[in-house]
Amino acid sequence: MTSTGRRVGRPRAEERPDSGLTPREELLAAAAELFTTRGYGATTTRAVAERAGMRQASMYHYVGGKEQLLCELLESTVTPSLTFARALLAEEGAPAAERLWRLCRSDVTLLCGGTHNLGALYLLPEVQGERFAGFHRVRAELKSAYALLVAATEEGKALDGAELALRTDLVFGLIEGVILIHRSDPHRPADAFAEATADAALRVAGCAR
Amino acid sequence: MTSTGRRVGRPRAEERPDSGLTPREELLAAAAELFTTRGYGATTTRAVAERAGMRQASMYHYVGGKEQLLCELLESTVTPSLTFARALLAEEGAPAAERLWRLCRSDVTLLCGGTHNLGALYLLPEVQGERFAGFHRVRAELKSAYALLVAATEEGKALDGAELALRTDLVFGLIEGVILIHRSDPHRPADAFAEATADAALRVAGCAR
Repeated sequence: MTSTGRRVGRPRAEERPDSGLTPREELLAAAAELFTTRGYGATTTRAVAERAGMRQASMYHYVGGKEQLLCELLESTVTPSLTFARALLAEEGAPAAERLWRLCRSDVTLLCGGTHNLGALYLLPEVQGERFAGFHRVRAELKSAYALLVAATEEGKALDGAELALRTDLVFGLIEGVILIHRSDPHRPADAFAEATADAALRVAGCAR
Repeated sequence: MTSTGRRVGRPRAEERPDSGLTPREELLAAAAELFTTRGYGATTTRAVAERAGMRQASMYHYVGGKEQLLCELLESTVTPSLTFARALLAEEGAPAAERLWRLCRSDVTLLCGGTHNLGALYLLPEVQGERFAGFHRVRAELKSAYALLVAATEEGKALDGAELALRTDLVFGLIEGVILIHRSDPHRPADAFAEATADAALRVAGCAR
């Protein structure tokens, strides 16, 4: 037995109330909070570890570092939408405009949901690096799904390739642009806003609604 | 006379070719480059000064520091649009939808112009602080101008206050959302894109185009 108060052996500190999260999830939650409130560049791995209730050295049991945390947070803003988009693309019976509308609504709900505005991290210069290729791949595939749905609408069938690409850029830009709207007004009820944005996206795509 | 190579007295170092910029403009250009390529948090005032060809201490002859540089860069992305919006609001003879279209085109051209994608700095958590009140005020006034133009369109006159606010948010979100589109494809010709975005903004506002 020792009389000192120092913790040994177990990686996680014990001061924090039990959140029900795994240490890895706690690190992601801490990183999401600090990256969006203090800034990515201004946040040290040590600060993330402390916020998650563990020492810095212990953090590396669970994640590779700050970049990996950012990468996973970014991927969490696109992967669920891509999964949904793939399901919608397989639903060939439903009108394309309706499927596009549902994808937009779901994507806006995801981007405006969650405790932190993770989409704000898209614009970090750091995210252009090779380490974030996984995020860029998923985002590009999601955008391709938007393009396929825009092209499959009645109005889209009449457009040439360049016009289709431009419409897709604008639809996708409107959807991702909710990050900026959400930042200005984070307490807006997400459901009605997601539906209104999906309506607007169909108008941008050229489908009257 | 001294035989050492150390520079004394004059604030600016002399290695840089003459850019035709004032020291203050050189500092702004250096900050724009570093904030958008390395990140705001990761850029030191010393790095900005060096990039502008001067020593850190000399920088404070011209600007108050890193926050002031960020503040001025942000204001440069909204002030010209606000000036143009005020002129458009005064043009009461022209149809509101046409004036809204011209504001959108001009704003997109500004946001996609310039060497660096300064709009990417909007989402920095640091920008929510009190020090950036000037930028937020100009941006809010610009958004109010959009709201007045949306309300003055034939279609806008039929909308209630909540619906008008929502349409304005979506139009403004689409316009600011070009920051994200521009980031993905910085070499797109800006003029045609600005016109296509202005067309889309009118559709979002509910004006057929």
